Amino acid sequence: MNGAEALIETLAQAGVEVCFANPGTSEMQLVAAIDRQHGMRAILGLFEGVVTGAADGYGRMADKPAMTLLHLGPGLANGLANLHNARRAGSPVVNVVGDHATYHLQYNSPLTSDLAGVARPMSDWVKASRSERDLPQAGAEAMAVATTYPGRIATLVAPANHAWTEGSASVAARPAPAAPTVPAAVIEEVATLLREADAPKAIFLGGRALREGALEQAGRVAAATGARLICETFPARLQRGAGRVAVERLPYFGEQAQDYLQDFKAIVFCGCEPPVSFFAYPGKPSRLSPDGARTARLASAEEDAERALTDLADALGAPAEPALAQQAGTPPIDGGRLDPVKMGAVIAAALPKDAIVTDEANTSGIALFPYTAGAAPHDWLTLTGGAIGIGLPLAVGAAVACPDRKVIALQADGSAMYTCQALWTMAREKLDVTTILINNGSYAILNIELMRVGVQNPGPKALSMLDLRNPAIDWVSISEGMGVPARRATTSEELREALDEALADKGPHLIEVLI
Amino acid sequence: MNGAEALIETLAQAGVEVCFANPGTSEMQLVAAIDRQHGMRAILGLFEGVVTGAADGYGRMADKPAMTLLHLGPGLANGLANLHNARRAGSPVVNVVGDHATYHLQYNSPLTSDLAGVARPMSDWVKASRSERDLPQAGAEAMAVATTYPGRIATLVAPANHAWTEGSASVAARPAPAAPTVPAAVIEEVATLLREADAPKAIFLGGRALREGALEQAGRVAAATGARLICETFPARLQRGAGRVAVERLPYFGEQAQDYLQDFKAIVFCGCEPPVSFFAYPGKPSRLSPDGARTARLASAEEDAERALTDLADALGAPAEPALAQQAGTPPIDGGRLDPVKMGAVIAAALPKDAIVTDEANTSGIALFPYTAGAAPHDWLTLTGGAIGIGLPLAVGAAVACPDRKVIALQADGSAMYTCQALWTMAREKLDVTTILINNGSYAILNIELMRVGVQNPGPKALSMLDLRNPAIDWVSISEGMGVPARRATTSEELREALDEALADKGPHLIEVLI
Repeated sequence: MNGAEALIETLAQAGVEVCFANPGTSEMQLVAAIDRQHGMRAILGLFEGVVTGAADGYGRMADKPAMTLLHLGPGLANGLANLHNARRAGSPVVNVVGDHATYHLQYNSPLTSDLAGVARPMSDWVKASRSERDLPQAGAEAMAVATTYPGRIATLVAPANHAWTEGSASVAARPAPAAPTVPAAVIEEVATLLREADAPKAIFLGGRALREGALEQAGRVAAATGARLICETFPARLQRGAGRVAVERLPYFGEQAQDYLQDFKAIVFCGCEPPVSFFAYPGKPSRLSPDGARTARLASAEEDAERALTDLADALGAPAEPALAQQAGTPPIDGGRLDPVKMGAVIAAALPKDAIVTDEANTSGIALFPYTAGAAPHDWLTLTGGAIGIGLPLAVGAAVACPDRKVIALQADGSAMYTCQALWTMAREKLDVTTILINNGSYAILNIELMRVGVQNPGPKALSMLDLRNPAIDWVSISEGMGVPARRATTSEELREALDEALADKGPHLIEVLI
Repeated sequence: MNGAEALIETLAQAGVEVCFANPGTSEMQLVAAIDRQHGMRAILGLFEGVVTGAADGYGRMADKPAMTLLHLGPGLANGLANLHNARRAGSPVVNVVGDHATYHLQYNSPLTSDLAGVARPMSDWVKASRSERDLPQAGAEAMAVATTYPGRIATLVAPANHAWTEGSASVAARPAPAAPTVPAAVIEEVATLLREADAPKAIFLGGRALREGALEQAGRVAAATGARLICETFPARLQRGAGRVAVERLPYFGEQAQDYLQDFKAIVFCGCEPPVSFFAYPGKPSRLSPDGARTARLASAEEDAERALTDLADALGAPAEPALAQQAGTPPIDGGRLDPVKMGAVIAAALPKDAIVTDEANTSGIALFPYTAGAAPHDWLTLTGGAIGIGLPLAVGAAVACPDRKVIALQADGSAMYTCQALWTMAREKLDVTTILINNGSYAILNIELMRVGVQNPGPKALSMLDLRNPAIDWVSISEGMGVPARRATTSEELREALDEALADKGPHLIEVLI
């Protein structure tokens, strides 16, 4: 077999079932190999940010990597922003990027670039294969890297001549290293801290500590110690809803987050680093935890969070039953013209059991998270790395990973535009995604940020750079142009009806909400 | 003034009139400074590939840089593919990328990345400012780099605290270095080669050698020597049409290009490197010039091409009147259902004088270039770097640079999708661009390439990765969704009528052509 076939067989045998692809000429041998590979599904994205964002969504929900197939340096470059988000989410992704034949690089043909240089800033591991025999070896190595707990971004550069040369063979998968566990001494130290510290105290949870099993254990710790459970602002995947252990979410703006944390006497971090301000602002601190609090790290993002919380709960002699179980229930719905609050109530009431919510609603989504706290159990996926344009691709990937679950994409208009091509993939693959496109006609967050960085009296040129109304974007048109049926909602009643219709069907829908 | 104001004033005083922008929080001070800067226009793009591609189009037509304003590493990453194209075009571009405050970087907040690492692969020059005083200094340096003949990509990283800190001041522009001229000995050597070599012989022209003035001189050389004039396959800006000196264009596919060149006994290169195959293919050579030909370089892409051709013509005692002047005239139009040939004839006949054509028509554009040879004089801009998604942004930039000229965007569907957001900017700025969106429902070039790399009998999975028909994309809907009036044409008559209507109006239009 040729190098391409050996690589694809290696990845398939290691468990890769899905390839999100936007190939070009230098990937044609890989396309042919995927074509022949039983058990590997190929899903086309019409822009590379869709491809990498979908791989992120898939990785968050499947807890194993999809493969991406990208075309040379510029193709990878188009996918970098969502790889940045995926990396911040701790998602497992294996990127395979075709390159020119090795002997062709010296001629500097038009599409030549420093491919490894493009890959490096957003990858945990980058390797160019050295031969047709090395290509599957490098593929196995990429899988081992990507599946390292909680998940990493591995980028493999596949020169075209290694792909087309015969004489290669697939290789066995290398087992991923087990997630490191937290030493008993650390567990004991944290237990002592929690026992001794004055109230209020908190466990600050992020990464894998936000999965149902880990939260159950965190709830036991809360039962034993009275600690509050706080969730990082942008969780990769938070399992929540009625009956699950509930967490409070740290506010986005630095000064609010600082206020939120300032009274705690002790904070234990698990599954993430201590929180910092998203951006710096003149005269405001970057670190958000209060200087006076006693702090300790139970587990980093790379250590087994659920195990650490279990060990901690046991060390504390915590009861089997967790505290902070979420009561079922959603707020009442007010009729009439939609605003962010009414929208939140309608969506919370309609949220199906086991829904997957991808949240890139930004400023307009203010009521969505709190209002859905007591909705049916669901997963909540957010913009982990701040690079907008993740929401729709994330929904694509989540729907591919979980075909039997409803995906609800809560999507701000400005962010949606970056990767609007994802709608086409939803249509092609008939993905069960209902997109709620919240059209407020602006980069609303930037109007706030303009003030926050100290700009007074912005003029028309500045405001025009934050405004999306001239002309207004018609998302129903765009969605239908890409094959996703769409309708518009301006009142609670219309949104309810549109949601009922969309959720009753299995397949993609878009509801444009004007607020 | 603060660093942001000093930077923007420096750039404006150095001649920057336009900022293509997609800012975020870390650029708010720069937004405010642009707001206050007299004589600098701010143009919003809803995706960074639109921003950088527009800067490329502006640079090609204005022969001076626009500024781009981009948000951190991921924002720059989204703009890299079109910076790659701009770099290959020899376009002048000054990127200003906001970064976190320098003291904030250590906290690794969610949007932190190796910004200079992201910039480097597609930039000729990268610098992070060191202080609020250094920011305008670095801006002046960026301008000097960008305006180095024929044009370069300069990327300046502007930390937020340097932007907001007071106590800075604008600095004077540094003059761009003059374009290096070709030594007399080289001119003489090339003249001797052209005098002595047997026919057929050719001057192979690229880069700045394809402007009207340089072509005039190349035509004199042709008159004196009988040399044919061949143009690189993907010119950044070719000035052509009735009355101008005509060039032949090297075919795209390597084996055709090789056939085309194989009989030449001598080839002189001017304004570019010798041609190489776009991609490598098993068993096929990368270099396209025949081994047996005598070759010489008159001028590299970085040397003054028009001056070199003038000196060469004079050294040859060439007549004042160039050979190869293009006769006026366009092919007859056949009515009925459109195909690429009929489409070419309709467009050639309709092409207004001084039109700017941006050509990302790819496979469907086969008749467009030859059929417009004798049309009214116009500029032809192509995809120089092979990173698809340039066409619509290029049209935006060209229209901003030349508000009194008609821009015709010849655009393939697959490529258009990557940066479809450009339509919105056309609508907002009321740019005089008529987009002819050629919808063939596939990555047609890849169907050809699949065969060419030796893949036999591709299966349904492979073909689906090259197919855009399921679902069909409705470009009229997408265009109208972004505010650009659109209609569909399926016959010659409909296309003619739609073109007449669009060209009679001053403002953006889209015509979807189904072929």
